[in-house]
Amino acid sequence: MASRKGKQTFILDSKPQISAAASIAGKKESEGPLGRVFDVTLEDDMWGENTWEKSESKLQREAVRLAIEKRGVRESDIDCMFAGDLLNQCVGAHYGLKDMRIPFFGLYGACSTFCESMALAAMMVDAGFCRRSVCVTSSHFCSAEKQFRMPLDYGGQRTPTSQWTVTGTGAAIIEPGEGINISSVTAGRILDMGISDANNMGAAMAPAAKDTLMCLFNDTGTAPEDYDLILTGDLGVVGSELFRDMTSREGKDIYSRHEDCGCMIFDIKGQDVHAGGSGCGCIASVFSSEIMNRLKQGRIKKMILMATGALMNTQALYQGESIPSIAHAIVIEGSK
Amino acid sequence: MASRKGKQTFILDSKPQISAAASIAGKKESEGPLGRVFDVTLEDDMWGENTWEKSESKLQREAVRLAIEKRGVRESDIDCMFAGDLLNQCVGAHYGLKDMRIPFFGLYGACSTFCESMALAAMMVDAGFCRRSVCVTSSHFCSAEKQFRMPLDYGGQRTPTSQWTVTGTGAAIIEPGEGINISSVTAGRILDMGISDANNMGAAMAPAAKDTLMCLFNDTGTAPEDYDLILTGDLGVVGSELFRDMTSREGKDIYSRHEDCGCMIFDIKGQDVHAGGSGCGCIASVFSSEIMNRLKQGRIKKMILMATGALMNTQALYQGESIPSIAHAIVIEGSK
Repeated sequence: MASRKGKQTFILDSKPQISAAASIAGKKESEGPLGRVFDVTLEDDMWGENTWEKSESKLQREAVRLAIEKRGVRESDIDCMFAGDLLNQCVGAHYGLKDMRIPFFGLYGACSTFCESMALAAMMVDAGFCRRSVCVTSSHFCSAEKQFRMPLDYGGQRTPTSQWTVTGTGAAIIEPGEGINISSVTAGRILDMGISDANNMGAAMAPAAKDTLMCLFNDTGTAPEDYDLILTGDLGVVGSELFRDMTSREGKDIYSRHEDCGCMIFDIKGQDVHAGGSGCGCIASVFSSEIMNRLKQGRIKKMILMATGALMNTQALYQGESIPSIAHAIVIEGSK
Repeated sequence: MASRKGKQTFILDSKPQISAAASIAGKKESEGPLGRVFDVTLEDDMWGENTWEKSESKLQREAVRLAIEKRGVRESDIDCMFAGDLLNQCVGAHYGLKDMRIPFFGLYGACSTFCESMALAAMMVDAGFCRRSVCVTSSHFCSAEKQFRMPLDYGGQRTPTSQWTVTGTGAAIIEPGEGINISSVTAGRILDMGISDANNMGAAMAPAAKDTLMCLFNDTGTAPEDYDLILTGDLGVVGSELFRDMTSREGKDIYSRHEDCGCMIFDIKGQDVHAGGSGCGCIASVFSSEIMNRLKQGRIKKMILMATGALMNTQALYQGESIPSIAHAIVIEGSK
């Protein structure tokens, strides 16, 4: 039943469907170009909690609840949960989801976690281990800045290549059935090209994105023309340009088909976000809103969803290490 | 083919085998009761690196290399890698394994990560997605103390219930075949009983261990008598006692069959480790040495391996949160 093609691609013969998805986005995100497509937008990124971390946990919990509600099932109808976030020891997920009594697999792949969670959930459903799985990831600008960069109160200057961590989340339910289907998974390998500038993660992640995409094309015998959309999250403006150029140099022209969630979620110039959005809530919230809508409306027949992650921590950078990266991709086919 | 029993248990019909395992342990661990069974022991926990974090990364890399060597295959014969550790953003795994060009799934489940990685690897092999997977987790006393507690140089006092993070690692290769086989997986659910003492993680994790064990018994229709060994990692002295008592109160007497890796790896009194060992290198190194030996020698016919994890971070504790925990279990059958 299950099969593998080439080095990194898993073919899902049963093509599990994404039966529902829900998105929540923060205040700044709600003022961006996609502000009207999110299911819930926050007036205030604290969302009634007394810490940013608790607000991030609430994002995950409420997104899962909303996805379950949209699907018309109950929490007890979910077999398995795949979740993660950017916080140390993934506490966004752990505290957010602890009261749901659902078998839980915790993941860490930085911003690649959303596709990692969808990949594992889809494989588990395809293999028949799970009847219905939920995937969820989040990020929160304030908890991420505090942890990875500087306390917000310092008002630190941002470099032109830096990305703005999205406050947001997306949750998706995966189960057997016809609809919006996942037909294959291409798992990423870690790649480190020596970039050590924590303010230029797009450049660190672009080679990993190129590596996984080329592998997907090779393994599945497909080309850019076979896809209506090649969507990355979140290379941002700088990383996207590098990614398209690197891919083009390998003989695959993706210029007209590539979009990046980090460039879509904000009005880059108008909202002063420098190189665009990032964080594993970015691709999660953009996919679970705008992209699911396009898939449902038949505006996308077949697409690649690829999430990229920078796998360093602050300590490693202080110790002079470069930034290893990874990209996981899934192929999604829209309703016929 | 794949099937599910009850709420949390996945039956692996093909019973993938653990075809090789390798262990590395630090200096203090090498002086404990299991000192002679580890494949490699360190004279100095820096292991020639200039930071503890790099030493921890080296632990993972060398354990994987050694497991591959013991199995008699090459890196390119490994299809998939499931790995994690306790460091922020799991950098032990990322930096340690970045030069192996193997599809990589990063996991975070605190000390439960070893069983989480074996569970996912075994399911992927059972489903036919992978031919041969490797699982690896690590911990390092010095990198963990620095990150979770106090800089070592402070010489902080340890409470009687505190556990000693093991410097060590274990890597296991999982593939189809007869030998030492994994017959089922029981995935844990997050449980938070309100314990908020970071120096008593055994107490925080014991209820999660009881929850998963009772679920395993119910789902598979088995009882303690069906197993030669119920092995947890790492409840330590305090958590183990609570775990056995709680399980006994549910009508399942496991007193004579239960061992805990945190209690096995050190001479508890003689080595001044208070409540015993912990860290996701503890169960990984004990399982990959002593327990694999017992399985190979036929001294264990059937056992439960259950790894428990405390899912907090320091920030959450500073903010007054309690400690959510989880336990993942797998059933292992020894060679006939």
